[in-house]
Amino acid sequence: MLLEQIKKPNDIKEIAPEDYGILAEEIRKFLIEKISKTGGHLGSNLGAVELTMALHLSLKLPEDQIIWDVGHQSYTHKLLTGRRDGFDTLRKFHGLSGFPKRKESDCDAFDTGHSSTSISAGLGLVKARDIKGEKNTIISVIGDGSLTGGMAYEALNNASRLETNFIIILNDNNMSISENVGGVSKYLNNIRTADSYLGMKEGIYNTLRAIPKGDNLVGKIRRAKNSFKQLVIPGMFFEDMGITYLGPVDGHNVKALMKVIGEAKRVKGPVLIHVITQKGKGYGPAERHPARFHGAEPFDIEKGIPTNPRTTPNYTDIFSTVMCKLGQRDEKVVAITAAMPDGTGLKRFRNMYPERFFDVGIAEEHAVTFAAGLAAGGMKPIVAIYSSFLQRAYDQILHDVCIQNLPVVFAIDRAGLVGSDGETHQGIFDLSYLSSIPNMHIMAPKNKWELSDMVKFAVDFGAPIAVRYPRGEAYAGLEEFRAPVKLGVSEMIYEESQVAIFAVGSMVKEAEKVRTLVKEAGYGCSIINARFVKPIDEEALKKAAADHCLIVTMEENVASGGYGEKVRELITREQLPVELLTITIPDIYVEHGNVELLKKEIGIDAQNVAEGIINIMESMKQS
Amino acid sequence: MLLEQIKKPNDIKEIAPEDYGILAEEIRKFLIEKISKTGGHLGSNLGAVELTMALHLSLKLPEDQIIWDVGHQSYTHKLLTGRRDGFDTLRKFHGLSGFPKRKESDCDAFDTGHSSTSISAGLGLVKARDIKGEKNTIISVIGDGSLTGGMAYEALNNASRLETNFIIILNDNNMSISENVGGVSKYLNNIRTADSYLGMKEGIYNTLRAIPKGDNLVGKIRRAKNSFKQLVIPGMFFEDMGITYLGPVDGHNVKALMKVIGEAKRVKGPVLIHVITQKGKGYGPAERHPARFHGAEPFDIEKGIPTNPRTTPNYTDIFSTVMCKLGQRDEKVVAITAAMPDGTGLKRFRNMYPERFFDVGIAEEHAVTFAAGLAAGGMKPIVAIYSSFLQRAYDQILHDVCIQNLPVVFAIDRAGLVGSDGETHQGIFDLSYLSSIPNMHIMAPKNKWELSDMVKFAVDFGAPIAVRYPRGEAYAGLEEFRAPVKLGVSEMIYEESQVAIFAVGSMVKEAEKVRTLVKEAGYGCSIINARFVKPIDEEALKKAAADHCLIVTMEENVASGGYGEKVRELITREQLPVELLTITIPDIYVEHGNVELLKKEIGIDAQNVAEGIINIMESMKQS
Repeated sequence: MLLEQIKKPNDIKEIAPEDYGILAEEIRKFLIEKISKTGGHLGSNLGAVELTMALHLSLKLPEDQIIWDVGHQSYTHKLLTGRRDGFDTLRKFHGLSGFPKRKESDCDAFDTGHSSTSISAGLGLVKARDIKGEKNTIISVIGDGSLTGGMAYEALNNASRLETNFIIILNDNNMSISENVGGVSKYLNNIRTADSYLGMKEGIYNTLRAIPKGDNLVGKIRRAKNSFKQLVIPGMFFEDMGITYLGPVDGHNVKALMKVIGEAKRVKGPVLIHVITQKGKGYGPAERHPARFHGAEPFDIEKGIPTNPRTTPNYTDIFSTVMCKLGQRDEKVVAITAAMPDGTGLKRFRNMYPERFFDVGIAEEHAVTFAAGLAAGGMKPIVAIYSSFLQRAYDQILHDVCIQNLPVVFAIDRAGLVGSDGETHQGIFDLSYLSSIPNMHIMAPKNKWELSDMVKFAVDFGAPIAVRYPRGEAYAGLEEFRAPVKLGVSEMIYEESQVAIFAVGSMVKEAEKVRTLVKEAGYGCSIINARFVKPIDEEALKKAAADHCLIVTMEENVASGGYGEKVRELITREQLPVELLTITIPDIYVEHGNVELLKKEIGIDAQNVAEGIINIMESMKQS
Repeated sequence: MLLEQIKKPNDIKEIAPEDYGILAEEIRKFLIEKISKTGGHLGSNLGAVELTMALHLSLKLPEDQIIWDVGHQSYTHKLLTGRRDGFDTLRKFHGLSGFPKRKESDCDAFDTGHSSTSISAGLGLVKARDIKGEKNTIISVIGDGSLTGGMAYEALNNASRLETNFIIILNDNNMSISENVGGVSKYLNNIRTADSYLGMKEGIYNTLRAIPKGDNLVGKIRRAKNSFKQLVIPGMFFEDMGITYLGPVDGHNVKALMKVIGEAKRVKGPVLIHVITQKGKGYGPAERHPARFHGAEPFDIEKGIPTNPRTTPNYTDIFSTVMCKLGQRDEKVVAITAAMPDGTGLKRFRNMYPERFFDVGIAEEHAVTFAAGLAAGGMKPIVAIYSSFLQRAYDQILHDVCIQNLPVVFAIDRAGLVGSDGETHQGIFDLSYLSSIPNMHIMAPKNKWELSDMVKFAVDFGAPIAVRYPRGEAYAGLEEFRAPVKLGVSEMIYEESQVAIFAVGSMVKEAEKVRTLVKEAGYGCSIINARFVKPIDEEALKKAAADHCLIVTMEENVASGGYGEKVRELITREQLPVELLTITIPDIYVEHGNVELLKKEIGIDAQNVAEGIINIMESMKQS
């Protein structure tokens, strides 16, 4: 096997050019086999095999540097830099990360995870190189999806005046996770599909007839320009910005790619290579269902279906259903996603109410201010964005939604630990960053029915409000507890004495396990479903303080600015006669791995929490 | 006076067209007179007089809607909508805001303050209009500076596929606050300066010779394209995105503007009108010194200089000086600003070390990730961004700097209450949003010497670190306290017993006043300069708790996630035998006004704090 000969960076250069095709096939086979067992990002990696090979053949790593935008397409890069053995532990705790990590290899030039950062980071590396007087090649690889993110454009705008080499590879597969959106995407598509140069000359002659002679009337100019637009001059959009455009190039032809990379290296300035690739290339099911095989669970290679198909709904499904109901009930309900119609569950809403559905691309900032505009126009917008991606829109929530107190609903999926995507994707900051914002309200549901009730409550609430819920299976316990949702009111689940656990959202389920252990140790244990993180239920907390000797808060969020801190403030402000134990995510980045395992590692699993509680109760007994 | 005839929206339509020039002159005179007394944004308003008149003449307010990007150019709009009398209270507490405010007038369609939001908000209003089946005209007015912000591009990318009318006016004065940067700016400049259409036809004939015939070689295509680029076809950049481009138009010709707005209203889709204006138009000093008259203090109209020129340095000056020293001492020191070389004080660094200075435009997201790239490349980047604007880069700090623990220094100016710019500009959230981030360190200096020491400390710290300091005069007291800066170590200023005030940054000065009042009431009072907000000085706090009966924290930041909450956590975790009073900004948006007045209003001035302390001490005596 050729792949076995590649044990460290640059080994690929020993492969004979006529064998590139065989190597590409081996890589694809390897990736499909490994990912079918571990799960992972399949489609984007299958699309980038030849591109990665060409990069490694054209560069000398680690002196030359590649910055992978988002980074989930870096598997082949990992394979070619001596990390083949790691693939058995891919995305598992202490195993190989699914993203580039500087701590994993010096061939990983910059850590990525969120979208649209690679040109900014690459430009920083370029400027550092130039200041140091070095000559290495630096290449940022960005997808057409990532190009819908504003910071990519900010970076292009800055790169444009460079006078030294900087290569940007546009890996254009006409997709974000789902179909790509917007004017630039349409523009790229025109380049892809036009017989650009062949028809160019004739087109120009025809165009000339329409040009006004020294007459500056708007109407005539419009007509002339419309004729011009029919000529597709590849890349003038980028050239207008000051960036040399090369392409389009077939992204599955290693030799063609090497040739154009070689040309690009000679340009003294910023150069963009437009590479056309196919997501899922070489594996039929992934080619046909790119969204399904974007981030895949383990799957059956033959059948192209998950090995352990989900049988129970997850929170996203629940959200999906309630959104369809709300869409029918109220014509003012509109839904916004940032390139995640599948991931957020809004696809069904889109299919039912296309005119009230907006996929804005990977553009969280725009998504939120656009929603604010919709709200100012009398609509009831629901913005569905994952917790870690909504970090991008902190200022827009604060500045565009909350100052004007506009009724925007934030549906925050993937809140809490997300597992195998790791550090960049953990949704463990939203309670903090949202809590700091005046006029914001924050809820978290304990189970699937409550998510539904909370979304309904939020839509008619009339002010900024967020519902945050975790990745994965929707909890179907505690069905009997379904008191109407009321602003700032918590929900008593079990009322006893001694210990009172105030649990936020997903932690209610964990609290039930804690309670079992605490009761086994001989203590009474109440569980209160916090429901609201902002405002907190001061009445219930005061009552609990009077009836118990220990209050425990549980949340999947960092301590600073979280729920526990608000409870602590109340207890000290009111001098409530009760001990407090706050269970939070510690002040560290939590790596990838199974969520239950991660909880244990950071001490927020039921066993650890129960032990903490029992210790406190024991010491209180003694004193 | 014509201006006196305009008492409410649409009154301008009663003015005879031949009098437009006179009215414009009256407006300019009014603005210059008023702003010379109150201070305010002069240059941008003088540049937008005719544009605003043309908009009001072409539209019917409030049915038709104008969204002003940033909003500091909305003074003429305020004048034309019945708010003339408000200008005596401009930017004063409970007076007229310097920005559009929905609560001020129903002619203010959307509140703005930060840059690059207007197209997103406008598109939201457009979609709401279309869903409701209404037909009003919606116009977003955005400057060329704001167009360097990524979210403007995200919005353009989304607007491009609209099938109903949406007018975007590009108010192009070739400036941000300082000179504009980047490729798009250069592109716009080409349009401004080219005799576009006159020379177009001839240019095209020349170009044709260079076009390759059915031969797709990169080199030939490049040559052909280079020829093409010499033709400036106005607005193809926008047209490529799918947006109809009209212009360029003289932004000081009311009738020409009305004509093109009329044309634009007939376009079924997104249309961009490129308007060329001059910042400061009609007032010589502002035309010549646009940065100085961007946000002006009260000034002498004749002389064009401030009425009360500053005689003492402010924190920005101190930062400016230390950066020049560091730049000389260490060639790895690089500085980044987001369109604020003047405001951040980096202009001197730029003049001395142009190759290590980067103005990235109004692009805070890019600025931070670019800095992360520079740090990954071995540089020591200092990113200087105002507190409220750095909110834009929360995710980039968290995701691109801190996960990789890269040594980026954040110099956060305008932290705390900023005064007359009001709600959108108060820097009262940074301690919270930065505290939530693992690996981040946060400092605040008590006086001018300490700012200098902290910046020096930060540059060699080797991990992410922020220094936050307020707007305005640098405190020059407490010179004798200048212990070396050490990670997480506070500084004792006055050591007594009973009350211990831990004050953050600017609050040390306020704490001295508090101490005087507390001592007058008969209580001992220590003052400790916190220095570090993350990590807090646990040792000093424990010692203070042992030696005092009340600990008071003082910070210009909201409570949630701030310094006081960290101290509270320590006190309860360690069960320290001490009372705690936390002084913070309440959970509200603080409006515009004099900072000392605002402090009183929200209860964080010395008098209020001292009273709070004395009350607690009295009640402790009684119990």
